[in-house]
Amino acid sequence: MPRQTLTQKIIARRLALGLTWAEIAEKIGHSTVYTTAALLGQMTLDAGEADIVAKLLDLDPEEARLLTTVPYKGSLGEAVPTDPLVYRFYEIVQVYGTTLKEVIQEEFGDGIMSAIDFTMNVERKADPKGDRVVVTLDGKFLPYKKY
Amino acid sequence: MPRQTLTQKIIARRLALGLTWAEIAEKIGHSTVYTTAALLGQMTLDAGEADIVAKLLDLDPEEARLLTTVPYKGSLGEAVPTDPLVYRFYEIVQVYGTTLKEVIQEEFGDGIMSAIDFTMNVERKADPKGDRVVVTLDGKFLPYKKY
Amino acid sequence: MPRQTLTQKIIARRLALGLTWAEIAEKIGHSTVYTTAALLGQMTLDAGEADIVAKLLDLDPEEARLLTTVPYKGSLGEAVPTDPLVYRFYEIVQVYGTTLKEVIQEEFGDGIMSAIDFTMNVERKADPKGDRVVVTLDGKFLPYKKY
Amino acid sequence: MPRQTLTQKIIARRLALGLTWAEIAEKIGHSTVYTTAALLGQMTLDAGEADIVAKLLDLDPEEARLLTTVPYKGSLGEAVPTDPLVYRFYEIVQVYGTTLKEVIQEEFGDGIMSAIDFTMNVERKADPKGDRVVVTLDGKFLPYKKY
Amino acid sequence: MPRQTLTQKIIARRLALGLTWAEIAEKIGHSTVYTTAALLGQMTLDAGEADIVAKLLDLDPEEARLLTTVPYKGSLGEAVPTDPLVYRFYEIVQVYGTTLKEVIQEEFGDGIMSAIDFTMNVERKADPKGDRVVVTLDGKFLPYKKY
Amino acid sequence: MPRQTLTQKIIARRLALGLTWAEIAEKIGHSTVYTTAALLGQMTLDAGEADIVAKLLDLDPEEARLLTTVPYKGSLGEAVPTDPLVYRFYEIVQVYGTTLKEVIQEEFGDGIMSAIDFTMNVERKADPKGDRVVVTLDGKFLPYKKY
Amino acid sequence: MPRQTLTQKIIARRLALGLTWAEIAEKIGHSTVYTTAALLGQMTLDAGEADIVAKLLDLDPEEARLLTTVPYKGSLGEAVPTDPLVYRFYEIVQVYGTTLKEVIQEEFGDGIMSAIDFTMNVERKADPKGDRVVVTLDGKFLPYKKY
Amino acid sequence: MPRQTLTQKIIARRLALGLTWAEIAEKIGHSTVYTTAALLGQMTLDAGEADIVAKLLDLDPEEARLLTTVPYKGSLGEAVPTDPLVYRFYEIVQVYGTTLKEVIQEEFGDGIMSAIDFTMNVERKADPKGDRVVVTLDGKFLPYKKY
Amino acid sequence: MPRQTLTQKIIARRLALGLTWAEIAEKIGHSTVYTTAALLGQMTLDAGEADIVAKLLDLDPEEARLLTTVPYKGSLGEAVPTDPLVYRFYEIVQVYGTTLKEVIQEEFGDGIMSAIDFTMNVERKADPKGDRVVVTLDGKFLPYKKY
Amino acid sequence: MPRQTLTQKIIARRLALGLTWAEIAEKIGHSTVYTTAALLGQMTLDAGEADIVAKLLDLDPEEARLLTTVPYKGSLGEAVPTDPLVYRFYEIVQVYGTTLKEVIQEEFGDGIMSAIDFTMNVERKADPKGDRVVVTLDGKFLPYKKY
Repeated sequence: MPRQTLTQKIIARRLALGLTWAEIAEKIGHSTVYTTAALLGQMTLDAGEADIVAKLLDLDPEEARLLTTVPYKGSLGEAVPTDPLVYRFYEIVQVYGTTLKEVIQEEFGDGIMSAIDFTMNVERKADPKGDRVVVTLDGKFLPYKKY
Repeated sequence: MPRQTLTQKIIARRLALGLTWAEIAEKIGHSTVYTTAALLGQMTLDAGEADIVAKLLDLDPEEARLLTTVPYKGSLGEAVPTDPLVYRFYEIVQVYGTTLKEVIQEEFGDGIMSAIDFTMNVERKADPKGDRVVVTLDGKFLPYKKY
Repeated sequence: MPRQTLTQKIIARRLALGLTWAEIAEKIGHSTVYTTAALLGQMTLDAGEADIVAKLLDLDPEEARLLTTVPYKGSLGEAVPTDPLVYRFYEIVQVYGTTLKEVIQEEFGDGIMSAIDFTMNVERKADPKGDRVVVTLDGKFLPYKKY
Repeated sequence: MPRQTLTQKIIARRLALGLTWAEIAEKIGHSTVYTTAALLGQMTLDAGEADIVAKLLDLDPEEARLLTTVPYKGSLGEAVPTDPLVYRFYEIVQVYGTTLKEVIQEEFGDGIMSAIDFTMNVERKADPKGDRVVVTLDGKFLPYKKY
Repeated sequence: MPRQTLTQKIIARRLALGLTWAEIAEKIGHSTVYTTAALLGQMTLDAGEADIVAKLLDLDPEEARLLTTVPYKGSLGEAVPTDPLVYRFYEIVQVYGTTLKEVIQEEFGDGIMSAIDFTMNVERKADPKGDRVVVTLDGKFLPYKKY
Repeated sequence: MPRQTLTQKIIARRLALGLTWAEIAEKIGHSTVYTTAALLGQMTLDAGEADIVAKLLDLDPEEARLLTTVPYKGSLGEAVPTDPLVYRFYEIVQVYGTTLKEVIQEEFGDGIMSAIDFTMNVERKADPKGDRVVVTLDGKFLPYKKY
Repeated sequence: MPRQTLTQKIIARRLALGLTWAEIAEKIGHSTVYTTAALLGQMTLDAGEADIVAKLLDLDPEEARLLTTVPYKGSLGEAVPTDPLVYRFYEIVQVYGTTLKEVIQEEFGDGIMSAIDFTMNVERKADPKGDRVVVTLDGKFLPYKKY
Repeated sequence: MPRQTLTQKIIARRLALGLTWAEIAEKIGHSTVYTTAALLGQMTLDAGEADIVAKLLDLDPEEARLLTTVPYKGSLGEAVPTDPLVYRFYEIVQVYGTTLKEVIQEEFGDGIMSAIDFTMNVERKADPKGDRVVVTLDGKFLPYKKY
Repeated sequence: MPRQTLTQKIIARRLALGLTWAEIAEKIGHSTVYTTAALLGQMTLDAGEADIVAKLLDLDPEEARLLTTVPYKGSLGEAVPTDPLVYRFYEIVQVYGTTLKEVIQEEFGDGIMSAIDFTMNVERKADPKGDRVVVTLDGKFLPYKKY
Repeated sequence: MPRQTLTQKIIARRLALGLTWAEIAEKIGHSTVYTTAALLGQMTLDAGEADIVAKLLDLDPEEARLLTTVPYKGSLGEAVPTDPLVYRFYEIVQVYGTTLKEVIQEEFGDGIMSAIDFTMNVERKADPKGDRVVVTLDGKFLPYKKY
């Protein structure tokens, strides 16, 4: 079973059962973002976590095992996303890419923000003019070293 | 004078004068991120702000005026960035794109996080295992409306 | 069931039943454009609307539920559309893109026309030299804010 | 002199002189959209119109003549626009492309909306919740003929 | 049934029955080019014509109905065709594209040759040095109008 | 001097002198299409023809010599043309590509229409409903041979 | 049955039966290169040849007939081949493309080496330092003609 | 001086002096193909050879030195060549790519034809039906080794 | 059976059986890297090795035979890999590509490091600050030869 | 001065002065690989190192300062390198990409080899059958963390 097929099955089961990503996340004890990414085929679970998910979503053992293996990552299937919600994040990279580079390197020197030693959080911030989405990216700074 | 030429001149002047983006930002009273984006040709300044920048960086009046006009945005010049620091942000969109879609829509319904009614902040978070870059994206949720 | 499969089924059922998009739109009380977009997998319906559609087109409950979920948007499957009708709209963006930017920003300042807080209408305008298609795009202006 | 160089010169002159596109349009008696498109290298002017523009913007006779020749059209220089204002129009084609096809063909049969026998208008619509941009596309329907 | 599936079935049936495109065209009373394009999923037939084709090729009623609907056009599935016969036509556009633009606009002014109000004919021209393919493109000139 | 620079100079000179492509073609005794293609850097002239052109357009000897050398062909600088006039020809290849393949091969067998042993002609055809552009492509059929 | 399916079946049958391309070629009396290309869906066989192949590889009549029809050519499914053996030939075009153009045109004038009136041969050349692959391309020179 | 500038200068000088590639090749004692490739920025010469070329084409010492350095190879500047002569070679790779793979591997096993330990020769073959271009590619077979 | 299907089956079987790549490699007596590449459809095994693998993973004879045939190589299915682990290797080529060229050619002259007469090894290097991945690429230098 | 201009100047100076990358590296006390990468615009030097280089290559102070700033990285200017030496490394990523993923993850779990906390070394290994290039990539393993 290719991972994409499992991802589609999980999406359908979750929908049919009326479960939220947040509820599944709570059951396995990780953040909603990490849990959702794992179930969408981008992160891995350990065997115990996969079992919990398998029970919740009625997956069989082979499918549970697949959740514990490392997937080939990249969720979009296209270089520039067409979905408007996802595109806005791409647009931020396009418009602010060189700004992020300048500002981070002014503060830290030559290096990068890790996307591996990394957590992401999504929150709703109430606002009378319209609630806001607050996404926090938190990654270790990794300096280039001379050698 | 094309905007890119001005951007390159600003980068060179800033370097020659030893000014930081944060110092320039403080002079014109905006955040470092916004100020840097404006000087890299992605956002606009008003006439007063442009004058302050022009004095700091020894730009002529035509160049100051250019800083007040709306640029054709997109800082990368390529669909997939090759610079490792910038790529990591693209990678986050690739790996977490569908996750962001699921998590935001579960909370807010069908719509997007605005990249226009939007602020971004970059901070250093001290950490004994290595300091971290924390980037906060804060955009208004815009719901699709039926009609 | 992937959304595309449902979209193809809806197209086939509509054809077999001889229903127009306008008739379906009238049943659920939205505009023809919005309704068509929702049934082609680009917008969402609520449960009541989805039920009406399911009855009209003989869809099963799982399919009706799928109509209430937010799809991954982007209807073309290619960056530059090959279909002549759709291409003409792409051509307008290519030829008039910078014009739209100049004219809108001259009137409104730096910002965009929202494609989310947005409605679209398509009408036939009688003309003795050949009837005309009139497409009206109506989106909220969203200004960039300084921060 | 390549057309792009003239376009950049016109943009700079207009800025230096503080002229709006609307003012230039009024002088030559065309709509703001058409006039802007012509000056951005997408449409043509006749000799008299080009002279008026040349006087307004202090262009020399060779440049005026260039305004009367048919340019190689396409204003973006990239298949998918990176500028957020322009991208929103591309997004509308991506999200609503198949919808436009279905709705126009349901009304008119197989054919297209002409992008040549075509006018476009941009207007501000006052709205207490935020003014709106209204773009009207008006093109002759051209039916495919059997042969 | 997706249109492509029908196209493949038509190609196979025609082959199995030993029918030529010209023979089918004669039965429905259109040119060979138009008829072939319609059966390859690029043009539409009316109900009567579709019935004739359905009988000839033993298609069922749903398939006949599909022939009367407007397909999403674009027969190649790639931007630059790899098939040598089709590529030669692309090569003509590449090599002679700017020539066609200059020559047509010198004669007609700013505008295009319509690809909608358009007929195409393919003929064999006997030649002792090797017979020749003569393709005639005949499209209405559509002038850009000022507005 | 790169060929493109010469092409731009020729375009400018022709414009300044008010010469048509047809007039230049008549002077050197070739068709308008061939002559225009040669002067736009796609075909070659012999020394005598190049001299005539050089005198007409006031080119220097090095430039005349360049007209006699074989250019790197391809006039568009992009895979899919953005100019509407040129795009229509690309669209014809996209929509009718498989049709041309079927119709030509039904008549001639496996092979191609040559784009080298090839002539092209552009004519105006008067029509009360609007004059028409008639483009005739005439290429030798080249059969694949078994070996 | 799409041609690709037949190609895959032929590859599998040949493998299971332990037949070489050279043996099949000998049976139908063509070169190994031509025969292999035909069986990989790039060239055509006549009915008699197809029958021989069908018997050798146990294909049914519909499949044999498919071998006699002209396929949509292009064997790679990608613009730049990833397979190292095939890539080396692409590399030769990349590195030596302009050299081939100069050398052939110096000898022959403006024109091309035909890829249609063309044969290709592959041979092993014994060499004590390691045997060599010798590929001979032999195509008729086709001159551009003035018109 | 970038290598491309030198390449263009060499092309212009050769033309002005009326030298053929074959004549230059003879002077430095290499084949015409190798010599042309070296002068077009794809291969290297040693100091003595570069001096001979510099004298022939009146290049200065810095330019001669550049001819002895290893260039960044790739002569086309595009993935799919638009020039018809060069495209035909690309077409051969597209149409015969999988055939070359099968035929070479049937003879030699898993490996490639080297494009480095490689020579290429171009010859004219007289033919009453039209002279032919014969291109011979001769590369060492390099087997994959197990490890 | 297409090779990709076999690759997916092998991945699934290995997972179900809890076998490591290293264990399979040991059974057939090749390195882990070579063995993994062969089982992922990039290298070939001989009949004896394929039998061992078939027994270990319960493959049928046709599948074993497929492992002995030369696959169409290229494991990614995309020009720029989206998976972060694989992308890092692409990034190294992007950032260090010209450096590798300069350093290798300074030492060896004009030529390449073979990717065919080549071995690769992956090792874990213990490090108190975090273990390291050490990848060793070892390829024969192949010099360009003059001819 | 854009960084690329400096890079080209450094390449030219080094050539004119007959300095090797290894000699420059020795002067500033870093490895040849790191030094070369820095001078080709991919890594940074500190002020003291930049001064040494400036003296060696006769650069002016502004140029020395540019060597201390962080460049926008990516040395190729194209997604798939055309230069054969560089391409071989791309080919290794294409052919062995999934193998590297499997082998590293089997040993280390889900994560990546860092391309930042990373060193690379290039060495010549004498071999009677032809010397070999040995490239060693040494990067810290960075595990994905759950959160």
